[in-house]
Amino acid sequence: MQKLSISTLVIGLSLMLCAPAFSKAPPIAIVIHGGAGTINKAQMTPEQQAAYEATLNQAVTAGYQVLENGGTSLLAVTTAIEILENSPFFNAGKGAVYTDNGTHELDASIMRGDTLAAGAVAGVTIVKNPIQLAVAVMEKSEHVFLAGSGAEQFAKEQGVALVENSYFDTDFRLEQLKKAKSLQKEKQKQIAMQSPNEQLPSLLSAQPSNLSVRLQADWPVEFNMGTVGAVAIDRAGNLVAGTSTGGMTAKKYGRIGDAPVIGAGNYANNQSCGVSATGHGEFFIRYHVAADICARVKYQKLSAKTAAEQVIAELKKVGGTGGVIVLDPQGNASWSFNTEGMYRAKKVEGQPVEVAIFAEDQKAD
Amino acid sequence: MQKLSISTLVIGLSLMLCAPAFSKAPPIAIVIHGGAGTINKAQMTPEQQAAYEATLNQAVTAGYQVLENGGTSLLAVTTAIEILENSPFFNAGKGAVYTDNGTHELDASIMRGDTLAAGAVAGVTIVKNPIQLAVAVMEKSEHVFLAGSGAEQFAKEQGVALVENSYFDTDFRLEQLKKAKSLQKEKQKQIAMQSPNEQLPSLLSAQPSNLSVRLQADWPVEFNMGTVGAVAIDRAGNLVAGTSTGGMTAKKYGRIGDAPVIGAGNYANNQSCGVSATGHGEFFIRYHVAADICARVKYQKLSAKTAAEQVIAELKKVGGTGGVIVLDPQGNASWSFNTEGMYRAKKVEGQPVEVAIFAEDQKAD
Repeated sequence: MQKLSISTLVIGLSLMLCAPAFSKAPPIAIVIHGGAGTINKAQMTPEQQAAYEATLNQAVTAGYQVLENGGTSLLAVTTAIEILENSPFFNAGKGAVYTDNGTHELDASIMRGDTLAAGAVAGVTIVKNPIQLAVAVMEKSEHVFLAGSGAEQFAKEQGVALVENSYFDTDFRLEQLKKAKSLQKEKQKQIAMQSPNEQLPSLLSAQPSNLSVRLQADWPVEFNMGTVGAVAIDRAGNLVAGTSTGGMTAKKYGRIGDAPVIGAGNYANNQSCGVSATGHGEFFIRYHVAADICARVKYQKLSAKTAAEQVIAELKKVGGTGGVIVLDPQGNASWSFNTEGMYRAKKVEGQPVEVAIFAEDQKAD
Repeated sequence: MQKLSISTLVIGLSLMLCAPAFSKAPPIAIVIHGGAGTINKAQMTPEQQAAYEATLNQAVTAGYQVLENGGTSLLAVTTAIEILENSPFFNAGKGAVYTDNGTHELDASIMRGDTLAAGAVAGVTIVKNPIQLAVAVMEKSEHVFLAGSGAEQFAKEQGVALVENSYFDTDFRLEQLKKAKSLQKEKQKQIAMQSPNEQLPSLLSAQPSNLSVRLQADWPVEFNMGTVGAVAIDRAGNLVAGTSTGGMTAKKYGRIGDAPVIGAGNYANNQSCGVSATGHGEFFIRYHVAADICARVKYQKLSAKTAAEQVIAELKKVGGTGGVIVLDPQGNASWSFNTEGMYRAKKVEGQPVEVAIFAEDQKAD
C-alpha cells in the first residue's frame, strides 16, 4: 500500500517536473491589425464600433481556427487577411482608398520566418485578394517582388481571382478622396499666402523639410487608415507575416508604400520575430521599421514588444504616425502604435480572444 | 636664445598634440561598384579590362572631385553613378539588360544619411538616368517610391531627361538575353527528363525549394552583372548611398529587384553606415542586406567592413551571390563580395585611387 503510494508520488512528481518542459513548446498564436490612426471614440457610433470589432473577431478567430486544426501559419495569416480584404471597413481589397485619379492600386506582401521566402506585389488593380497574389509570387515565381500590369499578367497565369477595378469602390472612400483633395488645396493656399517665396510641397510630404514638418501635424491620417496585416505562429513554431493595403488616399505617380517592401511594412524570421506594420508608409520605408524591430530582437536581445515600442516611439519623434503588430518565436503577441487608435485583435493559445480599437483599451500584455 | 627655443618647443609640442584632434575630422571619400559576378580573367582581353578600369577610374575621380571642391556627397554619388549609367559597360542606364520581352525596365534609389530622406523608382523605361529621377522623387515628391508609368509621368513634370527605350539597347546584352533564354529552356528540359513529376521552377528561382537549390549552382550570374552604385561622405560628414540597375536578364511580370528597395540594395544612415549592393536581387530583398549591415554596425558595434563580410558570407551559404560597397561615418571605405569578381573603385582623402575587378586584386583595407 505504502509502496503504491510512493509510486504514485514518483509518477506525480515526474509529471510535475515534466510539465514545464511540455509548456515550453510555444503556444499557437495569431495577431492581426486593420490600421492605425486618428480613431475618435466620440465620432464613432456604438453600432460602427460593434461592426468593426465583429469583423476583427471573425478574422482573428478564423485564423486561429486554422492553427488549432494543425494548419500552417501561412494559411492562418492568409485566412485572416482575406476576411479583412473582403470587408469594406478596411483599406485593403474591397474598401481600398482611391488614388488621385479615382482608381485603386493595391499592394501586399507575405514572408515565411522559416525559409525567409517572400512574395510582394505593388500597384495591382484587378486582383480581388492581393495577399493571394503575394503568396503565388512567393511559391510559384522566380521573383520576390512584382508590380503593375506585369504582376497582373502573372496573376492571370496562376488563376488568381480577378475583378474589375470598380469592385473596390465604396462611397465612404470616395468621400475621403474629395475631402483629402480639397484639404490639400486649402493648405497649399494658406502656405502660399504665409510665405509666397517658399516652394510648395504637398500635404502628403514625408520627406524632411521645414515645410513638411509644418504640414505633418495636420496630416489627416484617417484618410489612409485601414491597412491590414496578420502574424501567426503554428504548431511547428513557424512564424509568417502578411500585410495588404490600398495605400494612401490621393496617391499619385505609381506610388508604392511600405506594405509590399520586405523589411519596411512586413518581415518574418523564426530567429527574431514577425511584424506587420501600418501607418504613413514613407516613414516606414525610410526607417525600415519591420526589419529594424527584428534586428533589435536579434542583436540587442530585446523582447519583440520592447523593440516595437522603441521603434514606434522613435518614429513619433520624426512625425511618422502608425503602428505594428509583433509576434515572437515563443508565441508572445503584442502591438505598439503612436496614434489615437489601432484596429487590432489577437488570440494566443490558452488565452481569450482580445479585440481593441482605442488607445485607452491598451492592456498590459 | 634658450627662451626662444623653449617657446619653439612648446609651440611644436602644441601642434603635435593638436594634430590628432585635427586628423579626427573624417576624410572625404567615395567608393563605387559596377556589379559583382563571374568575371573570368582568362575570358577578358587586356583591352576590355583596361576599358572597364578606365570607366571606373573616371567615375570615382569625378565623384571625388565634387567632394574635394566642397560639394555634397549627394552630388558626388549622382555624378559617379551617371557616368556608369551612361557607359554601355554596366547594367544601368545605357547597356541595361533586356527583359523577357526584349525591352528595358530600370530601377534606382538614393538615400541621405543625415535626414534619412530617400527616393526610389522601379520599372521605368524612358528615363535616361534613373538615379536623377530617384533624386527628384526624394526632393520634389511627397512619396519615397514610385513605379512604372506613374514614375515616368512624374519624370516628365520634373523635366528629367527622357529617351526612347531603344536608347538602352546594346548587342552585347541582346546576345545575353538569347543565351539566358536558351539555357533556361535547356535546364528545364533536363529537369523534366530527370524528374517528370516535379513542378518546373524557372532557372531564375531565388525562393527556397529543392529544385531551386539544384539550379542555383548553375545560375549564370554574369548575365545580370553590372548594377552600379556609389557611397560617399562629404566635408560635412554626411553619407549618401545610391544604386542603379537594369535588373535581371529575361525578367518578367514587372519584376522589381533589390536596387530600389530601401534597406535591401541601398541604405544610408550617418549613425551607422552607407551601403550599395549588387547581386541576385531576390536574396538581397529577403535578407534586407544593406540595412542588416548597418544594423550590425549600430547594434553590435561591428565595423562596417566586418558587418559587410559577415552578411555576404551568410548570403553565400544560402546561394545568394553578390557583393556590397560600404562606407562608415569615419570615412572608412571597403567592399565585400562572394563572387569571382566585382567591378569596384574607391578614393579616400590622402590615399591613392584604387580600382579593381578580380577577387585576387583584393587588398587588405
